[in-house]
Amino acid sequence: MHADILTLFPEMFAGVMNTSIMKKAQEKNKFDYHLINFREFTKNKHNKVDDYPYGGGAGMVLAPQPVFDAVEALTKEHREKTRIVLMCPQGEPFTQEKAVELSKEENLIFICGHYEGYDERIRQYLATDEISIGDFVLTGGELGAMVVLDSVVRLLPGVLGNETSAVEDSFSTGLLEHPHYTRPADFRGMKVPEVLLSGDHGKIAKWRKEESLKRTYERRRDLLENLKLSQADNQFLQSLTHHHE
Amino acid sequence: MHADILTLFPEMFAGVMNTSIMKKAQEKNKFDYHLINFREFTKNKHNKVDDYPYGGGAGMVLAPQPVFDAVEALTKEHREKTRIVLMCPQGEPFTQEKAVELSKEENLIFICGHYEGYDERIRQYLATDEISIGDFVLTGGELGAMVVLDSVVRLLPGVLGNETSAVEDSFSTGLLEHPHYTRPADFRGMKVPEVLLSGDHGKIAKWRKEESLKRTYERRRDLLENLKLSQADNQFLQSLTHHHE
Repeated sequence: MHADILTLFPEMFAGVMNTSIMKKAQEKNKFDYHLINFREFTKNKHNKVDDYPYGGGAGMVLAPQPVFDAVEALTKEHREKTRIVLMCPQGEPFTQEKAVELSKEENLIFICGHYEGYDERIRQYLATDEISIGDFVLTGGELGAMVVLDSVVRLLPGVLGNETSAVEDSFSTGLLEHPHYTRPADFRGMKVPEVLLSGDHGKIAKWRKEESLKRTYERRRDLLENLKLSQADNQFLQSLTHHHE
Repeated sequence: MHADILTLFPEMFAGVMNTSIMKKAQEKNKFDYHLINFREFTKNKHNKVDDYPYGGGAGMVLAPQPVFDAVEALTKEHREKTRIVLMCPQGEPFTQEKAVELSKEENLIFICGHYEGYDERIRQYLATDEISIGDFVLTGGELGAMVVLDSVVRLLPGVLGNETSAVEDSFSTGLLEHPHYTRPADFRGMKVPEVLLSGDHGKIAKWRKEESLKRTYERRRDLLENLKLSQADNQFLQSLTHHHE
Protein backbone atom coordinates (compact mmCIF):
# COMPACT_ATOMS: atom_id res chain seq x y z
CA MET A 1 0.00 0.00 0.00
CA HIS A 2 1.07 3.53 -0.76
CA ALA A 3 -0.30 6.56 1.08
CA ASP A 4 0.03 10.18 0.04
CA ILE A 5 -0.61 12.60 2.88
CA LEU A 6 -1.45 16.22 2.16
CA THR A 7 -0.59 18.37 5.15
CA LEU A 8 0.66 21.80 6.15
CA PHE A 9 2.65 20.18 8.98
CA PRO A 10 4.74 17.35 7.49
CA GLU A 11 7.07 17.50 10.51
CA MET A 12 4.34 15.93 12.66
CA PHE A 13 4.55 12.48 11.05
CA ALA A 14 8.02 10.90 11.30
CA GLY A 15 7.88 9.87 14.96
CA VAL A 16 4.63 7.98 14.57
CA MET A 17 5.17 6.67 11.03
CA ASN A 18 8.66 5.28 11.60
CA THR A 19 8.16 3.38 14.88
CA SER A 20 6.95 -0.07 15.87
CA ILE A 21 4.57 -1.82 13.43
CA MET A 22 4.56 1.10 10.96
CA LYS A 23 8.32 0.87 10.76
CA LYS A 24 8.22 -2.90 10.29
CA ALA A 25 5.62 -2.58 7.54
CA GLN A 26 7.99 -0.31 5.63
CA GLU A 27 10.99 -2.54 6.24
CA LYS A 28 8.98 -5.46 4.84
CA ASN A 29 8.00 -3.36 1.80
CA LYS A 30 4.31 -3.68 2.59
CA PHE A 31 3.76 0.03 2.99
CA ASP A 32 5.29 3.37 2.13
CA TYR A 33 4.11 6.94 2.41
CA HIS A 34 4.81 10.34 0.98
CA LEU A 35 4.18 13.70 2.64
CA ILE A 36 3.03 16.59 0.46
CA ASN A 37 2.85 20.11 1.81
CA PHE A 38 0.04 21.57 -0.26
CA ARG A 39 1.27 25.06 0.52
CA GLU A 40 3.73 24.40 -2.31
CA PHE A 41 0.80 24.34 -4.73
CA THR A 42 -0.49 27.83 -3.95
CA LYS A 43 -0.53 30.33 -6.82
CA ASN A 44 -0.61 33.53 -4.76
CA LYS A 45 2.31 35.70 -3.80
CA HIS A 46 2.35 34.91 -0.09
CA ASN A 47 1.65 31.16 -0.36
CA LYS A 48 -1.59 31.59 1.51
CA VAL A 49 -3.67 28.41 1.70
CA ASP A 50 -6.64 29.90 3.55
CA ASP A 51 -8.97 32.85 3.16
CA TYR A 52 -11.94 34.53 4.87
CA PRO A 53 -15.29 32.72 4.79
CA TYR A 54 -18.03 33.98 2.48
CA GLY A 55 -20.93 35.22 4.52
CA GLY A 56 -18.72 36.28 7.42
CA GLY A 57 -17.74 34.56 10.64
CA ALA A 58 -14.61 33.81 12.61
CA GLY A 59 -11.85 31.51 11.46
CA MET A 60 -10.21 30.92 8.11
CA VAL A 61 -11.23 28.42 5.45
CA LEU A 62 -8.87 26.26 3.35
CA ALA A 63 -9.16 27.46 -0.23
CA PRO A 64 -9.93 24.92 -2.96
CA GLN A 65 -7.13 25.67 -5.45
CA PRO A 66 -4.01 24.36 -3.63
CA VAL A 67 -5.78 21.19 -2.48
CA PHE A 68 -7.28 20.40 -5.89
CA ASP A 69 -3.95 21.03 -7.61
CA ALA A 70 -1.97 18.93 -5.12
CA VAL A 71 -4.35 15.99 -5.44
CA GLU A 72 -4.43 16.21 -9.21
CA ALA A 73 -0.65 16.27 -9.40
CA LEU A 74 -0.77 12.91 -7.61
CA THR A 75 -3.60 11.23 -9.42
CA LYS A 76 -3.43 12.44 -13.03
CA GLU A 77 -3.94 9.17 -14.88
CA HIS A 78 -5.46 6.89 -12.24
CA ARG A 79 -7.84 9.34 -10.61
CA GLU A 80 -10.80 6.97 -10.56
CA LYS A 81 -8.78 4.27 -8.79
CA THR A 82 -7.61 6.30 -5.83
CA ARG A 83 -9.57 6.78 -2.64
CA ILE A 84 -9.25 10.37 -1.46
CA VAL A 85 -9.89 10.57 2.26
CA LEU A 86 -10.79 13.89 3.84
CA MET A 87 -10.18 13.91 7.60
CA CYS A 88 -12.93 16.03 9.16
CA PRO A 89 -15.27 16.12 12.16
CA GLN A 90 -18.31 15.90 9.86
CA GLY A 91 -17.12 12.62 8.36
CA GLU A 92 -18.20 9.03 8.79
CA PRO A 93 -17.15 7.80 12.26
CA PHE A 94 -14.07 5.59 11.86
CA THR A 95 -14.50 1.94 12.82
CA GLN A 96 -12.57 -1.32 12.52
CA GLU A 97 -14.88 -2.22 9.62
CA LYS A 98 -13.74 0.87 7.72
CA ALA A 99 -10.11 -0.01 8.50
CA VAL A 100 -10.62 -3.43 6.93
CA GLU A 101 -12.24 -1.82 3.88
CA LEU A 102 -9.40 0.67 3.38
CA SER A 103 -6.75 -2.03 3.89
CA LYS A 104 -7.81 -3.52 0.53
CA GLU A 105 -6.79 -0.41 -1.42
CA GLU A 106 -3.43 -0.05 -3.17
CA ASN A 107 -3.33 3.73 -2.94
CA LEU A 108 -4.79 6.15 -0.46
CA ILE A 109 -4.65 9.92 -0.40
CA PHE A 110 -5.29 11.70 2.90
CA ILE A 111 -6.18 15.37 3.09
CA CYS A 112 -5.43 16.88 6.51
CA GLY A 113 -7.06 20.22 7.19
CA HIS A 114 -6.21 22.86 9.70
CA TYR A 115 -7.95 26.11 10.67
CA GLU A 116 -11.70 26.49 10.68
CA GLY A 117 -12.49 24.05 7.89
CA TYR A 118 -12.37 23.13 4.21
CA ASP A 119 -13.99 24.95 1.35
CA GLU A 120 -17.08 22.84 0.69
CA ARG A 121 -16.04 22.18 -2.92
CA ILE A 122 -13.13 20.04 -1.68
CA ARG A 123 -15.62 17.91 0.19
CA GLN A 124 -18.15 17.75 -2.63
CA TYR A 125 -16.05 17.36 -5.75
CA LEU A 126 -12.67 15.97 -4.66
CA ALA A 127 -12.98 13.63 -1.66
CA THR A 128 -14.28 10.09 -2.07
CA ASP A 129 -14.42 9.46 1.69
CA GLU A 130 -14.85 11.70 4.72
CA ILE A 131 -13.66 10.23 7.99
CA SER A 132 -13.90 11.44 11.56
CA ILE A 133 -12.05 9.59 14.32
CA GLY A 134 -14.47 10.79 16.98
CA ASP A 135 -16.70 13.46 18.46
CA PHE A 136 -14.00 15.77 19.76
CA VAL A 137 -12.19 18.82 18.39
CA LEU A 138 -8.60 18.40 17.21
CA THR A 139 -6.21 21.03 15.90
CA GLY A 140 -5.96 19.38 12.50
CA GLY A 141 -6.49 16.24 10.48
CA GLU A 142 -2.95 14.95 10.95
CA LEU A 143 -3.53 12.88 14.10
CA GLY A 144 -6.65 11.42 12.50
CA ALA A 145 -4.72 10.35 9.39
CA MET A 146 -2.08 8.69 11.58
CA VAL A 147 -4.76 6.85 13.55
CA VAL A 148 -6.43 5.61 10.36
CA LEU A 149 -3.11 4.56 8.85
CA ASP A 150 -1.94 2.75 11.99
CA SER A 151 -5.11 0.70 12.13
CA VAL A 152 -5.07 0.02 8.36
CA VAL A 153 -1.38 -0.83 7.95
CA ARG A 154 -1.42 -3.48 10.69
CA LEU A 155 -4.12 -5.28 8.68
CA LEU A 156 -2.02 -5.56 5.52
CA PRO A 157 -1.06 -9.18 4.80
CA GLY A 158 2.41 -10.00 6.12
CA VAL A 159 2.75 -6.98 8.40
CA LEU A 160 1.96 -8.64 11.72
CA GLY A 161 3.58 -11.95 12.56
CA ASN A 162 1.31 -15.01 12.55
CA GLU A 163 1.24 -15.18 16.30
CA THR A 164 0.14 -11.61 16.78
CA SER A 165 -2.40 -11.59 13.97
CA ALA A 166 -4.12 -14.61 15.50
CA VAL A 167 -4.82 -12.63 18.62
CA GLU A 168 -8.43 -11.72 19.24
CA ASP A 169 -8.22 -7.99 19.60
CA SER A 170 -11.05 -5.96 21.00
CA PHE A 171 -13.61 -5.18 18.27
CA SER A 172 -12.67 -8.14 16.06
CA THR A 173 -15.20 -10.21 18.05
CA GLY A 174 -17.50 -7.25 18.60
CA LEU A 175 -17.05 -7.61 22.39
CA LEU A 176 -14.64 -5.87 24.73
CA GLU A 177 -11.74 -8.10 25.73
CA HIS A 178 -11.66 -10.14 28.91
CA PRO A 179 -9.07 -9.25 31.60
CA HIS A 180 -5.46 -10.36 31.13
CA TYR A 181 -3.05 -11.33 33.88
CA THR A 182 0.61 -12.17 33.90
CA ARG A 183 3.25 -12.91 36.58
CA PRO A 184 3.47 -12.56 39.50
CA ALA A 185 0.35 -14.44 40.68
CA ASP A 186 0.44 -12.27 43.77
CA PHE A 187 1.60 -8.68 43.26
CA ARG A 188 1.61 -6.77 46.56
CA GLY A 189 -1.40 -8.78 47.70
CA MET A 190 -3.32 -8.24 44.45
CA LYS A 191 -4.00 -11.72 43.17
CA VAL A 192 -4.67 -13.40 39.85
CA PRO A 193 -8.09 -15.14 39.78
CA GLU A 194 -7.79 -18.82 40.77
CA VAL A 195 -9.41 -20.09 37.59
CA LEU A 196 -6.53 -18.81 35.44
CA LEU A 197 -4.06 -20.84 37.51
CA SER A 198 -6.21 -23.98 37.41
CA GLY A 199 -4.98 -25.39 34.11
CA ASP A 200 -8.59 -26.27 33.25
CA HIS A 201 -8.88 -24.96 29.71
CA GLY A 202 -12.63 -25.42 29.49
CA LYS A 203 -13.19 -23.39 32.64
CA ILE A 204 -10.72 -20.72 31.54
CA ALA A 205 -12.44 -20.31 28.17
CA LYS A 206 -15.82 -20.02 29.86
CA TRP A 207 -14.52 -17.48 32.40
CA ARG A 208 -12.97 -15.37 29.66
CA LYS A 209 -16.10 -15.39 27.53
CA GLU A 210 -18.25 -14.40 30.48
CA GLU A 211 -15.88 -11.65 31.61
CA SER A 212 -15.87 -10.34 28.07
CA LEU A 213 -19.67 -10.33 27.94
CA LYS A 214 -19.89 -8.78 31.41
CA ARG A 215 -17.43 -6.01 30.63
CA THR A 216 -19.23 -5.18 27.39
CA TYR A 217 -22.57 -5.20 29.19
CA GLU A 218 -21.30 -2.90 31.93
CA ARG A 219 -19.32 -0.46 29.79
CA ARG A 220 -20.56 -0.51 26.24
CA ARG A 221 -24.07 -1.89 26.04
CA ASP A 222 -24.33 -0.26 22.60
CA LEU A 223 -21.91 -2.84 21.18
CA LEU A 224 -24.23 -5.73 22.11
CA GLU A 225 -27.09 -4.44 19.99
CA ASN A 226 -25.73 -5.60 16.64
CA LEU A 227 -24.16 -8.88 17.75
CA LYS A 228 -25.40 -12.38 17.06
CA LEU A 229 -24.80 -14.23 20.30
CA SER A 230 -25.16 -17.90 21.15
CA GLN A 231 -27.99 -19.09 23.39
CA ALA A 232 -25.52 -19.64 26.25
CA ASP A 233 -24.19 -16.08 25.86
CA ASN A 234 -27.70 -14.66 25.86
CA GLN A 235 -28.60 -16.60 28.98
CA PHE A 236 -25.51 -15.30 30.72
CA LEU A 237 -26.39 -11.73 29.74
CA GLN A 238 -29.91 -12.21 31.04
CA SER A 239 -28.53 -13.35 34.38
CA LEU A 240 -26.55 -10.07 34.52
CA THR A 241 -29.65 -8.06 33.71
CA HIS A 242 -31.60 -9.65 36.54
CA HIS A 243 -28.68 -9.16 38.87
CA HIS A 244 -28.59 -5.44 38.07
CA GLU A 245 -32.31 -4.77 38.31
CA MET B 1 -1.09 21.77 32.89
CA HIS B 2 1.61 19.16 33.17
CA ALA B 3 1.34 15.74 31.54
CA ASP B 4 3.49 12.70 32.27
CA ILE B 5 3.36 10.11 29.53
CA LEU B 6 4.43 6.53 30.22
CA THR B 7 5.42 4.82 26.99
CA LEU B 8 7.81 2.28 25.55
CA PHE B 9 8.14 4.45 22.43
CA PRO B 10 8.99 8.01 23.53
CA GLU B 11 10.37 8.73 20.05
CA MET B 12 6.82 8.81 18.69
CA PHE B 13 5.83 12.05 20.39
CA ALA B 14 8.05 15.01 19.44
CA GLY B 15 6.60 15.64 15.97
CA VAL B 16 3.05 15.90 17.22
CA MET B 17 3.76 17.51 20.58
CA ASN B 18 6.01 20.28 19.30
CA THR B 19 3.96 21.57 16.36
CA SER B 20 1.13 24.05 15.86
CA ILE B 21 -1.13 24.67 18.88
CA MET B 22 0.76 22.21 21.12
CA LYS B 23 3.95 24.11 20.45
CA LYS B 24 2.27 27.47 21.12
CA ALA B 25 0.83 26.17 24.40
CA GLN B 26 4.34 25.32 25.58
CA GLU B 27 5.79 28.62 24.39
CA LYS B 28 3.07 30.41 26.37
CA ASN B 29 3.89 28.26 29.45
CA LYS B 30 0.37 26.86 29.56
CA PHE B 31 1.47 23.26 29.10
CA ASP B 32 4.48 21.02 29.38
CA TYR B 33 5.01 17.29 29.20
CA HIS B 34 7.48 14.64 30.23
CA LEU B 35 8.04 11.28 28.57
CA ILE B 36 8.86 8.31 30.79
CA ASN B 37 9.96 5.01 29.33
CA PHE B 38 8.69 2.58 31.93
CA ARG B 39 11.13 -0.04 30.68
CA GLU B 40 13.61 1.81 32.88
CA PHE B 41 11.61 0.68 35.93
CA THR B 42 11.89 -3.06 35.29
CA LYS B 43 13.65 -5.12 37.93
CA ASN B 44 14.52 -8.14 35.78
CA LYS B 45 17.80 -8.82 34.03
CA HIS B 46 16.61 -8.32 30.45
CA ASN B 47 14.40 -5.28 31.12
CA LYS B 48 11.36 -7.20 30.03
CA VAL B 49 8.09 -5.29 30.49
CA ASP B 50 5.79 -8.06 29.32
CA ASP B 51 5.19 -11.72 30.07
CA TYR B 52 2.97 -14.65 29.02
CA PRO B 53 -0.71 -14.52 29.98
CA TYR B 54 -1.96 -16.75 32.79
CA GLY B 55 -4.42 -19.25 31.41
CA GLY B 56 -2.69 -19.37 28.02
CA GLY B 57 -3.37 -17.60 24.76
CA ALA B 58 -1.47 -15.63 22.14
CA GLY B 59 0.14 -12.27 22.78
CA MET B 60 2.08 -10.84 25.66
CA VAL B 61 0.70 -8.93 28.62
CA LEU B 62 2.24 -5.82 30.23
CA ALA B 63 3.38 -6.81 33.73
CA PRO B 64 2.22 -4.73 36.70
CA GLN B 65 5.56 -4.02 38.42
CA PRO B 66 7.23 -1.55 36.00
CA VAL B 67 4.01 0.41 35.46
CA PHE B 68 3.15 0.65 39.17
CA ASP B 69 6.71 1.67 40.02
CA ALA B 70 6.89 4.28 37.26
CA VAL B 71 3.59 5.86 38.29
CA GLU B 72 4.53 5.85 41.96
CA ALA B 73 7.87 7.50 41.25
CA LEU B 74 5.82 10.34 39.73
CA THR B 75 3.06 10.66 42.24
CA LYS B 76 4.59 9.86 45.63
CA GLU B 77 3.15 12.68 47.72
CA HIS B 78 0.22 13.91 45.67
CA ARG B 79 -1.13 10.55 44.53
CA GLU B 80 -4.76 11.33 45.30
CA LYS B 81 -4.66 14.52 43.27
CA THR B 82 -3.44 13.08 40.00
CA ARG B 83 -5.68 11.58 37.32
CA ILE B 84 -4.07 8.47 35.89
CA VAL B 85 -5.41 7.78 32.43
CA LEU B 86 -5.07 4.33 30.91
CA MET B 87 -5.41 4.38 27.13
CA CYS B 88 -7.21 1.17 26.14
CA PRO B 89 -9.90 -0.13 23.76
CA GLN B 90 -12.06 -1.18 26.73
CA GLY B 91 -12.17 2.37 28.08
CA GLU B 92 -14.81 5.05 28.11
CA PRO B 93 -15.25 6.43 24.57
CA PHE B 94 -13.51 9.80 24.38
CA THR B 95 -15.74 12.83 23.75
CA GLN B 96 -15.46 16.59 23.79
CA GLU B 97 -17.19 16.54 27.18
CA LYS B 98 -14.37 14.39 28.58
CA ALA B 99 -11.81 16.76 27.02
CA VAL B 100 -13.43 19.68 28.87
CA GLU B 101 -13.38 17.68 32.10
CA LEU B 102 -9.69 16.76 31.79
CA SER B 103 -8.73 20.33 30.83
CA LYS B 104 -9.55 21.37 34.40
CA GLU B 105 -6.80 19.17 35.90
CA GLU B 106 -3.35 20.45 36.77
CA ASN B 107 -1.60 17.12 36.34
CA LEU B 108 -2.36 14.17 34.11
CA ILE B 109 -0.55 10.87 33.81
CA PHE B 110 -1.08 8.80 30.66
CA ILE B 111 -0.24 5.12 30.47
CA CYS B 112 0.26 3.92 26.90
CA GLY B 113 0.17 0.17 26.41
CA HIS B 114 1.51 -1.94 23.64
CA TYR B 115 1.26 -5.66 22.91
CA GLU B 116 -1.82 -7.69 23.77
CA GLY B 117 -2.92 -5.72 26.81
CA TYR B 118 -2.37 -4.65 30.39
CA ASP B 119 -2.30 -6.83 33.46
CA GLU B 120 -5.74 -6.29 34.94
CA ARG B 121 -4.30 -5.05 38.23
CA ILE B 122 -3.03 -1.89 36.48
CA ARG B 123 -6.59 -1.22 35.37
CA GLN B 124 -8.17 -2.05 38.70
CA TYR B 125 -5.80 -0.59 41.26
CA LEU B 126 -3.78 2.12 39.50
CA ALA B 127 -5.79 3.88 36.77
CA THR B 128 -8.39 6.49 37.68
CA ASP B 129 -9.68 6.78 34.10
CA GLU B 130 -9.76 4.42 31.13
CA ILE B 131 -10.16 6.08 27.77
CA SER B 132 -10.67 4.68 24.29
CA ILE B 133 -10.54 7.01 21.30
CA GLY B 134 -12.71 4.70 19.20
CA ASP B 135 -13.79 1.24 18.13
CA PHE B 136 -10.73 0.31 16.11
CA VAL B 137 -7.48 -1.53 16.85
CA LEU B 138 -4.31 0.53 17.17
CA THR B 139 -0.74 -0.66 17.73
CA GLY B 140 -0.49 1.09 21.08
CA GLY B 141 -1.89 3.78 23.31
CA GLU B 142 0.50 6.49 22.12
CA LEU B 143 -1.68 7.90 19.33
CA GLY B 144 -4.64 7.90 21.68
CA ALA B 145 -2.73 9.89 24.31
CA MET B 146 -1.70 12.42 21.66
CA VAL B 147 -5.31 12.75 20.48
CA VAL B 148 -6.56 13.30 24.04
CA LEU B 149 -3.80 15.81 24.79
CA ASP B 150 -4.35 17.75 21.57
CA SER B 151 -8.04 18.17 22.30
CA VAL B 152 -7.42 19.00 25.98
CA VAL B 153 -4.52 21.45 25.56
CA ARG B 154 -6.41 23.62 23.05
CA LEU B 155 -9.06 24.14 25.74
CA LEU B 156 -6.63 25.51 28.33
CA PRO B 157 -7.25 29.22 29.01
CA GLY B 158 -4.94 31.43 26.95
CA VAL B 159 -3.83 28.76 24.49
CA LEU B 160 -6.04 29.70 21.55
CA GLY B 161 -6.33 33.34 20.56
CA ASN B 162 -9.63 35.05 21.28
CA GLU B 163 -10.66 34.96 17.65
CA THR B 164 -10.14 31.26 17.24
CA SER B 165 -11.67 30.24 20.55
CA ALA B 166 -14.85 32.11 19.64
CA VAL B 167 -15.31 29.84 16.66
CA GLU B 168 -18.16 27.39 16.86
CA ASP B 169 -16.39 24.13 16.26
CA SER B 170 -18.27 20.96 15.46
CA PHE B 171 -19.46 19.28 18.67
CA SER B 172 -19.49 22.44 20.74
CA THR B 173 -23.06 23.06 19.51
CA GLY B 174 -23.85 19.35 19.33
CA LEU B 175 -24.50 19.65 15.58
CA LEU B 176 -22.18 19.05 12.65
CA GLU B 177 -20.92 22.27 11.15
CA HIS B 178 -22.51 23.95 8.14
CA PRO B 179 -20.50 24.16 4.87
CA HIS B 180 -17.78 26.79 4.56
CA TYR B 181 -16.78 28.59 1.37
CA THR B 182 -13.99 30.98 0.54
CA ARG B 183 -12.69 32.66 -2.61
CA PRO B 184 -13.00 32.30 -5.53
CA ALA B 185 -16.79 32.52 -5.86
CA ASP B 186 -16.47 30.42 -9.00
CA PHE B 187 -13.74 27.79 -8.96
CA ARG B 188 -13.66 25.92 -12.28
CA GLY B 189 -17.42 26.28 -12.60
CA MET B 190 -18.08 25.12 -9.01
CA LYS B 191 -19.93 27.99 -7.42
CA VAL B 192 -20.47 29.37 -3.94
CA PRO B 193 -24.19 29.41 -2.97
CA GLU B 194 -25.83 32.77 -3.81
CA VAL B 195 -27.05 33.34 -0.28
CA LEU B 196 -23.49 33.63 1.07
CA LEU B 197 -22.76 36.43 -1.40
CA SER B 198 -26.02 38.26 -0.62
CA GLY B 199 -24.81 40.26 2.38
CA ASP B 200 -28.13 39.48 4.10
CA HIS B 201 -26.96 38.35 7.52
CA GLY B 202 -30.34 37.07 8.62
CA LYS B 203 -30.65 34.85 5.58
CA ILE B 204 -27.06 33.66 5.94
CA ALA B 205 -27.58 32.70 9.59
CA LYS B 206 -30.77 30.82 8.69
CA TRP B 207 -29.08 29.00 5.79
CA ARG B 208 -26.16 27.98 8.01
CA LYS B 209 -28.38 26.72 10.79
CA GLU B 210 -30.48 24.70 8.35
CA GLU B 211 -27.45 23.25 6.56
CA SER B 212 -26.02 22.28 9.94
CA LEU B 213 -29.27 20.56 10.94
CA LYS B 214 -29.56 18.89 7.53
CA ARG B 215 -26.01 17.57 7.59
CA THR B 216 -26.44 16.21 11.10
CA TYR B 217 -29.75 14.63 10.11
CA GLU B 218 -28.25 12.99 7.03
CA ARG B 219 -24.94 11.82 8.54
CA ARG B 220 -25.22 11.53 12.29
CA ARG B 221 -28.83 11.19 13.35
CA ASP B 222 -27.50 9.80 16.66
CA LEU B 223 -26.27 13.29 17.62
CA LEU B 224 -29.78 14.74 17.40
CA GLU B 225 -31.18 12.44 20.05
CA ASN B 226 -29.74 14.28 23.05
CA LEU B 227 -30.16 17.84 21.80
CA LYS B 228 -32.65 20.43 22.93
CA LEU B 229 -33.73 22.18 19.74
CA SER B 230 -35.89 25.23 19.19
CA GLN B 231 -39.37 24.89 17.72
CA ALA B 232 -38.13 26.30 14.42
CA ASP B 233 -35.30 23.76 14.30
CA ASN B 234 -37.67 20.92 15.03
CA GLN B 235 -40.05 22.06 12.32
CA PHE B 236 -37.20 22.21 9.83
CA LEU B 237 -36.11 18.68 10.81
CA GLN B 238 -39.67 17.45 10.37
CA SER B 239 -39.76 18.90 6.86
CA LEU B 240 -36.60 16.87 6.10
CA THR B 241 -38.18 13.71 7.47
CA HIS B 242 -41.21 14.13 5.24
CA HIS B 243 -39.02 14.87 2.26
CA HIS B 244 -37.08 11.64 2.84
CA GLU B 245 -40.06 9.37 3.34
